[in-house]
Order: sequence, then structure tokens, then C-alpha cells
Amino acid sequence: MTGTMMKVPLRVIDLLRHANRNHPRVEVVSRRVEGDIQRYTYADAYRRVCQLARALDRLGVGKDARVGTIAWNGYRHLELYYACAGLGAVCHTLNPRLLTEQLTWIARHAADEILFFDATFLPLVEELRPQLPGVRHWVLMGDQESTMGRDAAAKITGLLFHENLIAGELADDLEWPNFEESQICGQCYTSGTTGDPKGVCYSNRSTVLHAYAAALPDSLGLSARDTVMPVVPMFHVNAWGLPYAAPMVGAKLVLPGPALDAQSLYDLCEAERVTIAAGVPTIWLGVLDHLRSSGAAFGSLERIVIGGSAASEATIREFESVHRVRVIHAWGMTEASPVGAINQFKPVHDALDADARHRLQTKQGREPFGIEMRIETESGEPAPRDGLTPGRLLVRGPWVVGTYAGGLDGERDDGWFDTGDVATIDSEGYMAIVDRTKDVIKSGGEWISSIELENTAMGHPAIQEVAVIGRPHQKWIERPLMICVLRPGQQVSATELSSWLGERVARWWLPDAIEFVDNLPHGATGKLLKSRLREQFAHIRFDQVSSCMESHS
Amino acid sequence: MTGTMMKVPLRVIDLLRHANRNHPRVEVVSRRVEGDIQRYTYADAYRRVCQLARALDRLGVGKDARVGTIAWNGYRHLELYYACAGLGAVCHTLNPRLLTEQLTWIARHAADEILFFDATFLPLVEELRPQLPGVRHWVLMGDQESTMGRDAAAKITGLLFHENLIAGELADDLEWPNFEESQICGQCYTSGTTGDPKGVCYSNRSTVLHAYAAALPDSLGLSARDTVMPVVPMFHVNAWGLPYAAPMVGAKLVLPGPALDAQSLYDLCEAERVTIAAGVPTIWLGVLDHLRSSGAAFGSLERIVIGGSAASEATIREFESVHRVRVIHAWGMTEASPVGAINQFKPVHDALDADARHRLQTKQGREPFGIEMRIETESGEPAPRDGLTPGRLLVRGPWVVGTYAGGLDGERDDGWFDTGDVATIDSEGYMAIVDRTKDVIKSGGEWISSIELENTAMGHPAIQEVAVIGRPHQKWIERPLMICVLRPGQQVSATELSSWLGERVARWWLPDAIEFVDNLPHGATGKLLKSRLREQFAHIRFDQVSSCMESHS
Repeated sequence: MTGTMMKVPLRVIDLLRHANRNHPRVEVVSRRVEGDIQRYTYADAYRRVCQLARALDRLGVGKDARVGTIAWNGYRHLELYYACAGLGAVCHTLNPRLLTEQLTWIARHAADEILFFDATFLPLVEELRPQLPGVRHWVLMGDQESTMGRDAAAKITGLLFHENLIAGELADDLEWPNFEESQICGQCYTSGTTGDPKGVCYSNRSTVLHAYAAALPDSLGLSARDTVMPVVPMFHVNAWGLPYAAPMVGAKLVLPGPALDAQSLYDLCEAERVTIAAGVPTIWLGVLDHLRSSGAAFGSLERIVIGGSAASEATIREFESVHRVRVIHAWGMTEASPVGAINQFKPVHDALDADARHRLQTKQGREPFGIEMRIETESGEPAPRDGLTPGRLLVRGPWVVGTYAGGLDGERDDGWFDTGDVATIDSEGYMAIVDRTKDVIKSGGEWISSIELENTAMGHPAIQEVAVIGRPHQKWIERPLMICVLRPGQQVSATELSSWLGERVARWWLPDAIEFVDNLPHGATGKLLKSRLREQFAHIRFDQVSSCMESHS
Repeated sequence: MTGTMMKVPLRVIDLLRHANRNHPRVEVVSRRVEGDIQRYTYADAYRRVCQLARALDRLGVGKDARVGTIAWNGYRHLELYYACAGLGAVCHTLNPRLLTEQLTWIARHAADEILFFDATFLPLVEELRPQLPGVRHWVLMGDQESTMGRDAAAKITGLLFHENLIAGELADDLEWPNFEESQICGQCYTSGTTGDPKGVCYSNRSTVLHAYAAALPDSLGLSARDTVMPVVPMFHVNAWGLPYAAPMVGAKLVLPGPALDAQSLYDLCEAERVTIAAGVPTIWLGVLDHLRSSGAAFGSLERIVIGGSAASEATIREFESVHRVRVIHAWGMTEASPVGAINQFKPVHDALDADARHRLQTKQGREPFGIEMRIETESGEPAPRDGLTPGRLLVRGPWVVGTYAGGLDGERDDGWFDTGDVATIDSEGYMAIVDRTKDVIKSGGEWISSIELENTAMGHPAIQEVAVIGRPHQKWIERPLMICVLRPGQQVSATELSSWLGERVARWWLPDAIEFVDNLPHGATGKLLKSRLREQFAHIRFDQVSSCMESHS
């Protein structure tokens, strides 16, 4: 029999309703594309969301309707998150950094009916518009009377405006429609380096559960005492869920808009007394550079969340030792809403010295409750949680993708999602990403991490960029090939580099060959295209047992 | 359309599976009825839960089966919570402080099939057993070979033993049965002062969502760095959910067993380095007394949770100012799993001085996300959230009762649950309990809090105990009657007391009459029986406009 508790669904709109009731005077501060700082409260946000929902309803946006957005982190984008979810419609965030053809493909695949965009993206919208006849309305996230508005209206006939749409609507509380908590509320496409992008359809349930887990003390530890700045874009897996978790706990929200340079981020952080900020490693490298060159210090920042790709030990050390900002290393993916693992210490780590703690922090962390991770060997057996044995990383949980938009399978037959990563998990539950499954080098039944080899080689003063790929080997199946770009004016020979590496990695990890090139191929989002390299170096095959291989196994 | 995330149900057993994977070496420490301290890890707990589930399965405990417990806070009780939930069965905690007739009624109503009990309760079980022929097995939570076990076996034929039941079972991981997350996992009866007790049936879903909300930074803020000691009994609304929230976050769990005296609690707290403990005000008054008389200080305790009834400003002040232990005042009820409101500060309160902060802390607090509170006037209109206007307190949310066991309506037609309390809510969302709905005095369209009058009168040095009830009044509908018990050897006249009160409460709150009695009637759980007083003083009717009433309105 079922328990006899109330059947109250988990709904995204209730997050903002909660903030409106309990934190009505807490601010949402946005740097706008207009250049200025806009500030209002959760109570204001909720009123405008009620207005926007009425406007969307008037435009015929009903249950399941896709509302596309091409926008920075800002209050109007936040309003779209909630107005769509409240209506049972779908906020579909498009990544403006993709190529026009990719965006066209994605907007068509999602069947976006309306497209909201920041004025910054007017040129992109002009390109997209003829390709997307299915989009019924194009809406500029601004007002008609501004210079930006007039310019845009001149270029796009029938253009609508966010501010003018809502201006005429009642701001009174709305009786939000009822639906199951499994109702879709958002959609986001993966930008895989191969194949078509795949759409992940978040539900009200998955989004709310993810927010609970993300706010826990051993996750991001979010409370009404926090001021949260998501530097990670709202078009990048919903800014890691922060636009949901912040209203859940009543934290002040600071949205940096298009100004993602280190100076602007630092200034906003100081002006708004940010306590926690989140972004990819590149952002934080830029901020560290800025702090070094300006001699500036943080006044309020307590912790930063680093995800998207691995944070280096050097970054972690500099933030913690020099700036007294705690680094929360996390791992996730579009398919996991995104948070899958978060690195926070346990009491058992109190005895570690600073170096050991920083090394531990390079791991991606442990599961928040709700996520289950496991690793399996190539033969599908569970790999031991010994922190040493790498395995294919599988995850499951209520905020992990089951099926992609269009019906393409996400989870495997056994109910687990294959992340495409290879990882270790230690006996305390800390997971460390070793490599991508397709990039790891399978040498004689053991795995060599291309990423670890690359990270090690990057420590050599002559190396500017480096890639390691596996090439076929008669005896060992695959062996590593290292491809290097030298720093201008620097020199190192393959033999010298190999010998330098020999002091830093296991002998059987040493590349069988080292090549030098002028540059390495990158995709639209800046990711290294190892698939291109595998084509380029298809001619290299290791059919001899090389000297370094004698020590294998 | 539905989102395309995995359909993974929220299950109670997964809380312990999570702790087993991520916190296998974290301890659960119990003071046993055997008198000693038992310690094991979450990994041990999980292994024994697998064994216990196999044993229960062998005894024919299937889906929906009621397993009663009469037990203190301890590891075996914890194992029953999880083994039952994992099987889709129901852990039904019985309150041994109730009268035998009440327990008989409740166990029959729940249809308990098996009854587990701590050796302490053998005399009670001997009384209950002839009354409960439906109970197929009686199980002592200990082992057959102990002195306790032999004694009990001599008295109860066919007695089973927790330790002997599980000893023969495999400890390997179990493939737990699949069921919907709405599946019942626990049952607890309210001990109302009037009418039959009512059963609340918690579901896997409600229990897990409640644990998320309880662990949030602005709730109890639980993490793997904590050591949690629920002093509140596991038979009292599941020890406020701590046996679920602790494994969710990997906190060490300290279970104080039957030794609830201040000295034992203090000793356990110090020995196990407890960081957070939870209990009713009486417990904390005892602890404060002990600290005062012994001059002892806390070494590790950071915060205490006070709920069940209101914490006084004096208690809050002494814990915070003298002992540097932060008080988290909370409000809940059996029908709300129990947490409905928690008092944590916001940044807006940083400017308050210590006195103002302590006064604010006497409020019961604000909603964790998931709970909605509202107050309504006698005519059913929403009362303003001004911190002044009292109203009938209504709550709703996924861990609030919808229907009681047996089909009795819990929620109203409009989907809200009437708590039976009168409360105010301020503009920051902080709720303060004013009175019970049935005890508040409805005087000329305004409400007078019997509790506040009682608390004020308790400040008079001659008063030992006091009750205020409403009596009919020709013009004002109801007016307060105060009934006092004097301290031995003390004297105060009705006129003197009225004049003393007149300096402390609004004139129109002053009782129309003050009576003196030798003692006041109490129920089995120690609650004041105002219903009895209303019968006893039925002859008192205020049919004259009294002098103090001239100032009304």
C-alpha cells in the first residue's frame, strides 16, 4: 500500500514561489547587455514571472511548447526559466558559441516555437532566422524604445520585446496549471565532438531533486547567507542548476551577463559581496592571472566551484593558499543535470598536510545522495573501489538522462548511463576522472590515461600544448603517440622529452613515439579534436616491441 | 510530455546503501539496554540490515506487513527502520510511555504482525501479549544466550531474538525488491489528548524528501563532518528523521539508548565528540541544570535542535551565551514527518544585538523548501504575514499527511492540513506558534493566547503551574479564566496577581477571573489536559462586562 502523505508534486515554479514567500527582499543582481547593473528582489522576479507567463500564454505557449533562448546570465533569462516551467512549457537554452549550422540543427530538432535572445546576439539571429521558419516569434530581451530595440526592430520585422510583452500583463499571483512532476521543464543539447547533438529533457522532478542535492552542506552548502554568482552560463546545463538552488535556499543571486573577463568578474564579486562563484577552469585561470598582476584580493569570496573540466592542483593550491578561497571541485555532464560528484573533505582528511589535501582535491569527488556511480572493467565486471583500478564510469539517479529527445536511448539495458569517461573510485567514495573512454590507451590489458600523460608533459618548459592518442600495436593492442606544439623559441628533442617523462611516469606509460607539429586541431567549443588527430596520424602503427615496453606488466 | 530522465524511485534503503558506499568506516555508536556502548560502522549496519531483511522475509514479512517496535534509540532499532523499508514493509514505532490500553488499541489498529522490543520493556510486553493475539512473533532485541535473553525466554514462550534471527543469514548485498516510491515504510500514531490516536503512514518518498530538507544548511546543516545525537526517541516521529538524514550525508550517529538523564547524555556527547544533538525542551533544561551544578562545559557540541514544544528565551540565551552552543528552534508534528519550520538567521539579522536575536529565536522559524505554511483568520481569509496577526496555521507539502491510517481525512478539501495551532508569520517568513486552536481565547473578534498568558504568569515567583482557558462571555463571546497552583509556602491574591499581570500584558488580555487549585490535570504524556479543566470550570460564565474589558478594541 502507499503511504498516506499528500500528493504534492515537485515543481520548479515552487522554488521561486518559496523565495517570494520567505525571501522577498533578497536581491537578484544582473549585469545587462545594456552595460549597466540591474537589481531587483525575488518578489519582483516572481511578479515579472507571473506577467511573463501571462504573456507567453497569450502568445499560445502551452504545455510542452519549446521556448528557445540565446542569452547570457541575467534576470530576464531567469524569468524565462520559471515562466516556462510554471506553464508546463520548456525553456530550451541554446549555446551561442556553437556554429550557426549546429544551432539551426538543434533549434529545428527541438522544434522551438519562440526564440528569446539578448541584443548581443542580433547578428547571429539574423543568420538563424531564415533557417528557422518554424519559430513563430522572435523576442528581444529588452525594450522596444531603447536604441538597441529600435536597431533590432529595423532589422527583424515583427520582432517582439520582452519588456513590452510583459508590460501590459497583471503581476498578481497566478494559479499555476497542475501537471505531474515528470513534466518536462527544460531542454539542453550536448555538444559532442562526434555525431549529432543530443537533447536532454529535464523534468520538474529531476530539477528540484538536483537542487536539493546541490544545496546540501557537503555539496555547495548553499544557504540564505550566501551570495551566489554562476559564471558558468545559463546555456551550459542551466548554469549547473544554481538558478534553481539559489531561490530554494534564499541566496542572493548575481548574474554576470556578457562580461566574463577577469576584471569584470572580480569587480562584480567585490561590489556584490559574492560568497560563492562557479565556473570552468579557464575562467579561474584568468581570475588568478588578474589577481597576480593587479595584486587585488577577495573581500567576501569564500569558495569557488570548478567543473566542466578538471581543475589542476596548481589552481587549487593558489586559490586556497594565497587567496583563502576554498575550491569545490565537481564533476557533471549535461546528461546528469549536471552534478554527479563533488569534492568536499571528510573528518578523516583532517590529518593530511596541505599538499596531500590539494592532491586529494584534484579528484572529482563523491556522490551526493541520489547519484550512484560505479566503474566497470572492459569485460563488464565491477572494478574495485581502490582508487587505483580505472574502469568505465557509469551513473544512475533521478536526475540522470534515461532517453534523449527523439527517443534515442540514454541508459543501457541494465539502467545505468555510460558517461564515456574512465575513472577510479577510492574506498572513501572519491571518484577521479582518468580519461575519456575513447581516448584511453588500452595497452596490454592495462589502461594508460592520455590526460595524465598530457598533464605531465605540460610541465616541461618547452611544451605549449600536447595531445596523446593511442595507435595500434601488434603485441600490446595500443601504445601512446605524443604530439607536441613547442613554445615559440623553445626546443626539445623526442629523446630528451622521453627521458624527462621517464622520471615522472611509469616506464610502460612512455610514448612509443613523439611527434612535433605547429598546432593542434580544436572544435567550436575549444575542445581538442582527438578524432582529427587519429585520422592525421593514421599512418603511424607500432608493430615493433619498443624498448620501453619490456617493463610492461 | 514527460522529461526523459531516469525513473529512479526515492527509496529509504538507498540512504543506507549510500552510506555503505561512501561512508563505510563512519561509526554508529549506541548505548545499549545491556548498559555498555556498542560501536560499528555504516558498512556493518548495512550488512546486518541485509541479514535482518533475509530473516524477516523468512518469517513471512512481506510488502505492507507491520513490524511493531517498542525500543530505545539504538543500532538494532536502526536496522529495523531500514530492513522493513527495504522489504516494502512498515516499521511501526510504538511509544512505550503510553498506557497499556492505548498501546493495545494502537497495535491492533495497525495490525502489527511482529513485535520487536528492548529488554527494558519485558514487563510491558508481558501485559500486552495476551491483548494482542494478532502478533505472530515477539522478538527481543538481544541474544538468547544473555542473562536478559534467558530471563525473557522463561517468561514468554516462543520468544525470538534479534541476534539469533540474523546470525544464520547471509550478509551479502541484497537485490532489494522494486516498488513505487509512494510505498509505505513507517507508521507512527499521534497521541492526541482527545479522541483515538491517529496513524500517519510515511512513504519512501516522503521520508527521503524530508531528509533532504532537514539536512540543508539552513535546516540542520548536516554533513559528513557532523556527529549527530538524536536524544528525541526513535518512537517519537522517527527521531525527527535523523536516522535517515545522518546516513544521507555520512554523519556519525550516536544513539543514547535508555540513558536520557543529563549526566549520561553529557558524558556520551563528550566521549563521542557529538557536534549536533536534538531533543525536547525538558531534556535541555535538565542538561543546563547539570552544567550549572557540575561546572562542566561542552568540548565538541556546536548546536542543538529544540522542538516538540516551544524553547524559552532563557534556555536559548543560556546555551548560546554561556555555552557557545547554537540553538536551532524547530517546529513540527507527527503529521509532518515532523519538520515544518526551522529557525536559522538571515543576513538581515546580523545587525541585531544578542537580546533581539534570542527573542527572534523563540519563533519556530521558516519553511524549508517543500513545506508551505499559511495562516487564515476565523472566516477563512488569508491572515497577513505581519508577525502580529494570529491565524489558524495550515501546512502542505510532500511530507505532510494526506489521509490517516484507516482512511480518516487528514487534509482539508482544499488540500491544506490544519495543524490545530494558531500562529503568526512575519514578512521574512518566520512563524511563531501562538496557541492551540482549541485553547486560544476568542475575545470580541480578537484572539488571546492562553500560552502567552501562562508564560507571563509563570514569571511570578509565587506561581508553580498555571493554565488559562476560555469561558463564555455574553458580550465578548469568550474571556480568559486563569487557574493557578501556588509554590509551597507562597501566597498571592487574585487581585495582586491581576495587577502584576497588568504591567506585563495588554489590559484586554487580563483574565476575568483567577482561581487557585492544588494541582492541574495531566495526560499520560505529561500534557496539560485543558479539556478536563473546561469541564471542571464549566460553572464559570462571564455574563457581566468586567472592568478590564472597557479597554477592549
